[in-house]
Amino acid sequence: MADETPAAGRLLSTEPVDVDEIGRWDLEADVVVVGLGASGACAALGATEIGADVLVLEASGGAGGTSAMSGGLIYLGGGTPIQQACGFEDTAEDMFAFLMAACGPGADEAKVRLYCDESVDHYHWLVGRGVPFKAGFYPEPGLEPPTDDALVYSGGEDAHPFDQIARPAPRGHKPQKRHAAGGFLMERLAEAVAATDARVAPDARVQRLVLDGARVVGLVARQGGHDVAVQARRGVVLCAGGFVHSDEMVARHTPLVATCSLRLGNDFDDGTGIRMAQSIGAAVMRMDAAECAVPMTPPRSLVAGILVNGQGQRFINEDTYYGRVGQEVLLRQEGEAYLIVDEALYEVTRAGLQASWVCETVEELEAEIGLPAGSLVSTFDLYQRHAADGADPLFKKSGEFVRPLVPPLGAYDLRVANPAAFYATFTLGGLSTTVDGEVLTVDGAPIPGLFAAGRTTSGIAAGGYVSGISLGDGTFFGRRAGRAAAGGSS
Amino acid sequence: MADETPAAGRLLSTEPVDVDEIGRWDLEADVVVVGLGASGACAALGATEIGADVLVLEASGGAGGTSAMSGGLIYLGGGTPIQQACGFEDTAEDMFAFLMAACGPGADEAKVRLYCDESVDHYHWLVGRGVPFKAGFYPEPGLEPPTDDALVYSGGEDAHPFDQIARPAPRGHKPQKRHAAGGFLMERLAEAVAATDARVAPDARVQRLVLDGARVVGLVARQGGHDVAVQARRGVVLCAGGFVHSDEMVARHTPLVATCSLRLGNDFDDGTGIRMAQSIGAAVMRMDAAECAVPMTPPRSLVAGILVNGQGQRFINEDTYYGRVGQEVLLRQEGEAYLIVDEALYEVTRAGLQASWVCETVEELEAEIGLPAGSLVSTFDLYQRHAADGADPLFKKSGEFVRPLVPPLGAYDLRVANPAAFYATFTLGGLSTTVDGEVLTVDGAPIPGLFAAGRTTSGIAAGGYVSGISLGDGTFFGRRAGRAAAGGSS
Repeated sequence: MADETPAAGRLLSTEPVDVDEIGRWDLEADVVVVGLGASGACAALGATEIGADVLVLEASGGAGGTSAMSGGLIYLGGGTPIQQACGFEDTAEDMFAFLMAACGPGADEAKVRLYCDESVDHYHWLVGRGVPFKAGFYPEPGLEPPTDDALVYSGGEDAHPFDQIARPAPRGHKPQKRHAAGGFLMERLAEAVAATDARVAPDARVQRLVLDGARVVGLVARQGGHDVAVQARRGVVLCAGGFVHSDEMVARHTPLVATCSLRLGNDFDDGTGIRMAQSIGAAVMRMDAAECAVPMTPPRSLVAGILVNGQGQRFINEDTYYGRVGQEVLLRQEGEAYLIVDEALYEVTRAGLQASWVCETVEELEAEIGLPAGSLVSTFDLYQRHAADGADPLFKKSGEFVRPLVPPLGAYDLRVANPAAFYATFTLGGLSTTVDGEVLTVDGAPIPGLFAAGRTTSGIAAGGYVSGISLGDGTFFGRRAGRAAAGGSS
Repeated sequence: MADETPAAGRLLSTEPVDVDEIGRWDLEADVVVVGLGASGACAALGATEIGADVLVLEASGGAGGTSAMSGGLIYLGGGTPIQQACGFEDTAEDMFAFLMAACGPGADEAKVRLYCDESVDHYHWLVGRGVPFKAGFYPEPGLEPPTDDALVYSGGEDAHPFDQIARPAPRGHKPQKRHAAGGFLMERLAEAVAATDARVAPDARVQRLVLDGARVVGLVARQGGHDVAVQARRGVVLCAGGFVHSDEMVARHTPLVATCSLRLGNDFDDGTGIRMAQSIGAAVMRMDAAECAVPMTPPRSLVAGILVNGQGQRFINEDTYYGRVGQEVLLRQEGEAYLIVDEALYEVTRAGLQASWVCETVEELEAEIGLPAGSLVSTFDLYQRHAADGADPLFKKSGEFVRPLVPPLGAYDLRVANPAAFYATFTLGGLSTTVDGEVLTVDGAPIPGLFAAGRTTSGIAAGGYVSGISLGDGTFFGRRAGRAAAGGSS
């Protein structure tokens, strides 16, 4: 338990401490929640709802975490009042079918099932905690709306192939605030926590779990340069974020993330919460999974261009969710992509990206980009032929965005290695948990006294991604983990 | 330590046992090696070389493991006597450059470096342990040669892009035996072990590590229906194989593996060795990584056909290593691939696969397969145009295999979901280890007394694969782990 500086190549030790080594507890609570982002706040709320005495330890100076840095979308559906007011029909079944497809391969069926079945209830719970939503639909999908409208398509539900898998409905719900609403969401959740008896200890860097036999009975944190022993009479809930800011863990599990120019997350997304649990035998899941947003839209109109890879071939319907496009480029196209547009489509993107090449003909453009001889021409000819009929038989882009391009043509350099193309990435892998947030050992047994939620866990988005699902499963399973840690049934 | 049957959804418990719970040791040794495949045999040999008393526990009735089921190729280079006798120049630098590229992204530079620098020494060591190699080069790459020649291209070294990254050299070394030589290799290694003082205990199913504080001091195995406590005075070396036969671990880490028709490995490749170490806080690495061989060749002549995906597009140079093609199909092409050939190329593959479609024209073939309108025609036209010049600017297949195809055309159904296409797969992820086989905690610190090698670890092939690298790194790092466990320096 002595203060230590890790040796070269090593991370700060998360080795557990035996309870016999704890002289006295500096702090105590029924439930100790680690992290005050969205999942931690909801864990605290869930635990206090059934009368538990709660202490939240936050590594930074206050509430927010990475949730506060986000756009604020929460993925909700199955017929929320907002969906109904905006005229969209939705069912838990459609939501389930969509999420299993969009968040796979290998999405956790039990988690997705419960999440969808209880999504409307979860909406009402969030509203009851002071999170307002305005019944308005913003028609441009992608980033969070600039207006204070709640509803937006945020996962490609109305694009191929998902439009054939489930009836499309927008499910991105943004709290009522113009532009990014993650900070606002966290203000409201932090206020809700403050209205309970839960205590919040800032600047407390949690480092090791305390074990009594196989049971987690507390933890040790660093606060103000000192070790602080914290007793958790009923349970610890780890809501400590992901690991995108740990170079070691990224290299160990998902090295392509390191090639992206922008890692989304606060500095404490360093995987400490995941490692603390691994140190006592917890299982991790899908640690390779990562979200990666292509910096292509807005403006949405650009999806009428064509995206090609390093062989000048198309590889996806350009109108699908930009996070899906980004994952495809990073994980399956060797980080290489170019967007081809004509003059009518051309705009500087909101992220400031301009065309790197402009040519009178597709032949010239192919040569300028340096694509293999004939490759872009062949792709372009096939696209144009079908586009004349408004069709895209290869990738089934919606007819709304399919028309022949009219040279001259421009091309945006969307290579991950292009420093002007900001690929934003974060990790999706984490601890293996039950729907009640119980952390499972590598053998599949719950670890007594240990719970987790948010990006410390592998959640709804086991493989793929949709915007709003991190705040969605963080708040939903965070609350459940808090209740379960407090000893309640869900 | 009671006998137990795991509850539904759970795996057999690998929770560690405290040394105080061990009444008496049933067996003792300086070094206890778990598993008698190639890595375990070499760990036993490495430990006995420096005088350690060694006990090998093998889950099955005898030596062999998955190594004995393999083709027997061992990846060696940098100028082995066999390479020299066959007229191939090679250097450790070329071997290093190739392996870093072919086994990435994120290959372990320290391991690859040492493996290449000491590869010639390792060749001599193997020969000294009774493993013979005959100086002969077999020109057809791919599966192990039907002759008893040693040398074969086994990783696409002479194909794009690797032929541009390092000077190509064949590095697959097969022990002197016709056809598959894995069984022969293991006979020789088992004989070498038998010639030492090492003891071998068969039918011993290792389950839990025994800890004295943070140090591994032994393990508990099941043998004949009883728990057997085994003391390891200096160290335990886990050489217990991968996890391809654990449905739970495959689902947790690499779900696409479950879509393949053929999982390569013996029944004990169930991840127990990995989980035993995870249960005491060991780190796993690259658990998503898997090898997957496309069942396309032999005959090698088929690579003169063209492989297309579900959009009728080519996606790789057909003449590269078949394991690289298989990984591409499984992991990046949604499991969908078709091989298009003409009459001159057509043959039933050695695996028995026949053409599923035969048509007079490419237009008809496109429709018969059900590919998007115009997609295969476009791909075919572009390929044919360049093939007339013997060129493949998109994927740079060697000119040797590039010529225009002459309709009528046939197509093999190489979809992973086709039950007649046997995609053979196994897992590559495992424990994080140093070059001396020390198992690292999630914090990056060595676990005292615990070592590992072979597919229980993440080795040279962190991401990609080349044939011969599993027996290669298993034997090389197995020996080093055995020496280190015995207390020797490497």
